[in-house]
Amino acid sequence: MGRLESAHGTLETPALLPVVNPRFEAITPRELHDRFRFQAIITNSYIIRNDARMKGEALEKGLHGMLDFPGVIMTDSGTFQSHMYGEVEVRNDEIVPFQRQIGSDIGTVLDIFTEPEWGYQRTAEAVDVTLERTREAATLKGNMMLAGVVQGSVFPDLRERCAAEMRDIAVDVHPIGGVVPLMESYRYADLVDIIIAAKKGLSPDRPVHLFGAGHPMLFSLAVLLGCDMFDSALYAKFARDDRYISTDGTLHLADMKVLDCECPICSATDIESLKALKPGERWPLLARHNLYVSKREMDRVKRAIVEGDIWELTERRCRSHPMLLDGLRRLKAHKGFLERYEPLSRDHAFFYTGPESLDRPSVHRYMMRTKERYRMPGTEVMVVFEHGEKPYSRHWAEHMRRVSAVADSHFFVMSEFGPVPIELDEIYPIAQSLFPENRDRDTIEHIREAMEDLAHRQEYGMSCMYDEESTVDMLSALSKPGTGFDLDQAKIAAVADYQFGTGAAEALLNGKVELVKSRNTDKIRNVIVDGEHVVSMRADDGFFTLRPPGAKRLLAGMEAPKLRVVVQDDSVPFNREGKNVMCQFVIDCDPEIGPMDEVMVVNSQDELIAIGRALLVREEMMALKKGLAVKVREGVK
Amino acid sequence: MGRLESAHGTLETPALLPVVNPRFEAITPRELHDRFRFQAIITNSYIIRNDARMKGEALEKGLHGMLDFPGVIMTDSGTFQSHMYGEVEVRNDEIVPFQRQIGSDIGTVLDIFTEPEWGYQRTAEAVDVTLERTREAATLKGNMMLAGVVQGSVFPDLRERCAAEMRDIAVDVHPIGGVVPLMESYRYADLVDIIIAAKKGLSPDRPVHLFGAGHPMLFSLAVLLGCDMFDSALYAKFARDDRYISTDGTLHLADMKVLDCECPICSATDIESLKALKPGERWPLLARHNLYVSKREMDRVKRAIVEGDIWELTERRCRSHPMLLDGLRRLKAHKGFLERYEPLSRDHAFFYTGPESLDRPSVHRYMMRTKERYRMPGTEVMVVFEHGEKPYSRHWAEHMRRVSAVADSHFFVMSEFGPVPIELDEIYPIAQSLFPENRDRDTIEHIREAMEDLAHRQEYGMSCMYDEESTVDMLSALSKPGTGFDLDQAKIAAVADYQFGTGAAEALLNGKVELVKSRNTDKIRNVIVDGEHVVSMRADDGFFTLRPPGAKRLLAGMEAPKLRVVVQDDSVPFNREGKNVMCQFVIDCDPEIGPMDEVMVVNSQDELIAIGRALLVREEMMALKKGLAVKVREGVK
Repeated sequence: MGRLESAHGTLETPALLPVVNPRFEAITPRELHDRFRFQAIITNSYIIRNDARMKGEALEKGLHGMLDFPGVIMTDSGTFQSHMYGEVEVRNDEIVPFQRQIGSDIGTVLDIFTEPEWGYQRTAEAVDVTLERTREAATLKGNMMLAGVVQGSVFPDLRERCAAEMRDIAVDVHPIGGVVPLMESYRYADLVDIIIAAKKGLSPDRPVHLFGAGHPMLFSLAVLLGCDMFDSALYAKFARDDRYISTDGTLHLADMKVLDCECPICSATDIESLKALKPGERWPLLARHNLYVSKREMDRVKRAIVEGDIWELTERRCRSHPMLLDGLRRLKAHKGFLERYEPLSRDHAFFYTGPESLDRPSVHRYMMRTKERYRMPGTEVMVVFEHGEKPYSRHWAEHMRRVSAVADSHFFVMSEFGPVPIELDEIYPIAQSLFPENRDRDTIEHIREAMEDLAHRQEYGMSCMYDEESTVDMLSALSKPGTGFDLDQAKIAAVADYQFGTGAAEALLNGKVELVKSRNTDKIRNVIVDGEHVVSMRADDGFFTLRPPGAKRLLAGMEAPKLRVVVQDDSVPFNREGKNVMCQFVIDCDPEIGPMDEVMVVNSQDELIAIGRALLVREEMMALKKGLAVKVREGVK
Repeated sequence: MGRLESAHGTLETPALLPVVNPRFEAITPRELHDRFRFQAIITNSYIIRNDARMKGEALEKGLHGMLDFPGVIMTDSGTFQSHMYGEVEVRNDEIVPFQRQIGSDIGTVLDIFTEPEWGYQRTAEAVDVTLERTREAATLKGNMMLAGVVQGSVFPDLRERCAAEMRDIAVDVHPIGGVVPLMESYRYADLVDIIIAAKKGLSPDRPVHLFGAGHPMLFSLAVLLGCDMFDSALYAKFARDDRYISTDGTLHLADMKVLDCECPICSATDIESLKALKPGERWPLLARHNLYVSKREMDRVKRAIVEGDIWELTERRCRSHPMLLDGLRRLKAHKGFLERYEPLSRDHAFFYTGPESLDRPSVHRYMMRTKERYRMPGTEVMVVFEHGEKPYSRHWAEHMRRVSAVADSHFFVMSEFGPVPIELDEIYPIAQSLFPENRDRDTIEHIREAMEDLAHRQEYGMSCMYDEESTVDMLSALSKPGTGFDLDQAKIAAVADYQFGTGAAEALLNGKVELVKSRNTDKIRNVIVDGEHVVSMRADDGFFTLRPPGAKRLLAGMEAPKLRVVVQDDSVPFNREGKNVMCQFVIDCDPEIGPMDEVMVVNSQDELIAIGRALLVREEMMALKKGLAVKVREGVK
């Protein structure tokens, strides 16, 4: 979640900005603020400027006085009108200063609306004009924040180029424009490609606004992809058509026989009374319902961000319409990009909702890291999994007979993620996941591919299965002295490499290793090497929390910039005291660090200053001028 | 939806009955009635009877006076207390008369709570005791309605036997009991088996109550399976634990940082204020929120029944928890049973939400009927489908070359349901369906199996694919004179057999066939045979509406009881006038008739009385003593 500061207060994101039509107000801006608690609205400067009376009033009283709205007011420029009516009678160098004059908090460039039916060349030219006008607007904006619109229609490369070229222009907010026709025709898969292309190009310190997105069924997916701001005229537009918004879709009042909403409007009436009203009395009520349900969904999305189940929520919401499900399925193509921003672990358990869940970035990360960072101690593979009828049972049973007598073998726990090395079976999302027992074909195929992949990586790919009880017996056997395999030692080494990178185990654990275990659960709590407490193992996600002696070992054993956040000298004394690292003091950072990763804060001489947890990725730390980069746990003096 | 009539008004089902604890009221029954508009509540007669003061008051004022609730009051008997505390100090022949004396609208037998950990024998004995007590209670109930509880734990055969033996006992409502421990441990797949086993045994004229089911995330699934009544103490119980109910699951207030609810409670406060309250002030608010959200979800389910998207809603809701998804997936095992009650078509389009959608009964029906009732005119199969990369493309492309020159071929439209004969491509759910473009493996496999199945049924199984444009060209070619194939004629024959059964086309269309087509869409509207208008084809679902001349032809050509609803002589004059057929007048009915099927109403001499649309299946028509069996469209004099 984010905070956008303006002369009229702070806008917490993700946020929905109701569209206020200055010509006729469905709901007064004052009510939007006081009753609905919207912190920001959007209105249209082009419409105001074209009406002599409104223009005069806006110039005289200012936009906030004219509309009687004390919060953030964003203005659009007329671009959408050019999409609707072919052209507009205003120039960029007129509408941008006008927005500034009437006191808009966020004014918008008069960009070119790139229509989905345009060819590549025409779109590319429109992008160039948009960029040109944005450069011009940046010189005209004064103290007003400026919204620089990313155009480029359905061409991801044009979207990304447009976004990237905006980096050097003094813009404050980035709407992604020209997407209304795509949303109107349910082209959600294209929308996903477009948002991701824009995000790749944009500087991460500027909020992203999905222009014209106002249907709550889309909010979760769009926020998941990094959209911060939304605006909607739908609440009023649909209301005038007797259309009733729900998170499952939109209904026509005439088709409805039951009201299933407890918003203040619906709980004060019933469907028959609503239908019996005159249209002029009904539509303001429907508009309010539509706003309540939209706001509720945005609040639900915020809760999902905080509670760690935004993937689960998105996967559920995208089942409101098959083409929204297509949007969800398109994420698979972008899982590498999404993985960069995926936190190491989330508070919410990994709930499987369908085949798409296995394409989540946390699964991708697990598959990649076990492939790249995990090394098996033995030479034979032994797959241990729960008893039961599996489609591949016979196949693996044959292998089992062949390896059952082999001493130098190794154990895997069967899971829907694939075979999990027994050393890693307590890390997120493995141990914090819940799947239905009845597997679909995509899950079965995922498991089969993961097993084959593992077998191919081993010289002697072998497999074996046991029921759960036998697993327990074998685990005890593994830990017995004399078998040459100590599960606890193997576990801390495997988790160190998985979490910090190949080589971390060697750096961290070189010496006499002692383990402090929980009395209740017998789980590893603290790892002591040569008498120093180097790391603690967290019960909730199975990963390590770094301690200064551990950080020093990693610093010595892992080359820069690995695991480091480098801070300016100004910041050093504060961080040594245990104060958090602010973005503006970050000089550099390991490009592989992700949110919630344990990091070492160092000065420009690569000396350890503090340890803590990263909240952002490198690009964000470098771009943001405010806010926390690293939550410091302990300063090092 | 249903209506249960009582001395205290009508209860519309599906309905949630809040549990009122007579010892301490979280929310007064009066508020439940006036503010929340609950038509019924449930309270516990055992607790009342065990408290001298309450017992006296209840006997003196009656339950309705004591609780100040003007609607339907159901009472439980102490069985749940025996589950909680091991035993209760009351006998069935005491508690049943007591419930009657205090004026309960629906009293409950003191049944034996069959615990999930019991073995088969003990459970079977408990079922016998429950049945014995139910027989006893039926002699003691007087004018009170009686709830006869179906027990049998997790053994479907015991559940079905218990339910079936209840048929002969004068019981009015059937709770399914002993399921709370299963719901508490998320054993939703077992719950599905249990509900279906009970439904198979029970007489369909009695409402089914899922005892103790109060979490809104389960409502849609349970209603889909035919549960009519629910009760919940969760709203209050969870509130006292600071737990906050949502349709996605349950949250602990301490973990929450955002309120995403617009119920009157939540919209008047915020999360910080709620947390700051004293527990004694907070929990009544949380209880009200919990009730609002539960009631809202029940209203949503009602809306889904009316609007025809209860499958879609259930599939979405079952993604709240992986074990609820397991419950959904268990429906596949019961699709034959579910198909009997599935209407011929639904108002809502078939929206695919995931692999489970292909196990819906409407798909099962399509697969079965095309297999049993569709006969291909040619001897070669030609599969026509949209252009694109498909995993089986190369395989079918080879076939294509081999059949491309064959003249006597036939056309199929490729769909996610499998290859659809071109004659049937306008019927529900084929033409009214929406799938994501990006197919999951279960869909791909479903298509492959359907194609193989089709190929195996043909002597020369052949296949061919074309892109969409070519399809159109070939369709024109098909309709040209001289090719020996008339698509329109083939379509009306195929739809007749699909909808009415094999042989219907011959009976209906024997003679000179003329078609009246829509000027705008060129689609078939009316079918005229030998000058008589026999059927009309509906634009919305592609099926026929029967006209009297068509019905006479079907009557002559299809043996009884096919397509007939036989009514008593008393009813005949009314139905001839066009009045609807009421259940109590139905003597017999084609056992294959389902909801929304076109039927012929006949007298005991098999003479045509009327035509119309069935609303129920045979068992329901025969069992119900009130309500519509057939909505008559036209009487025949």
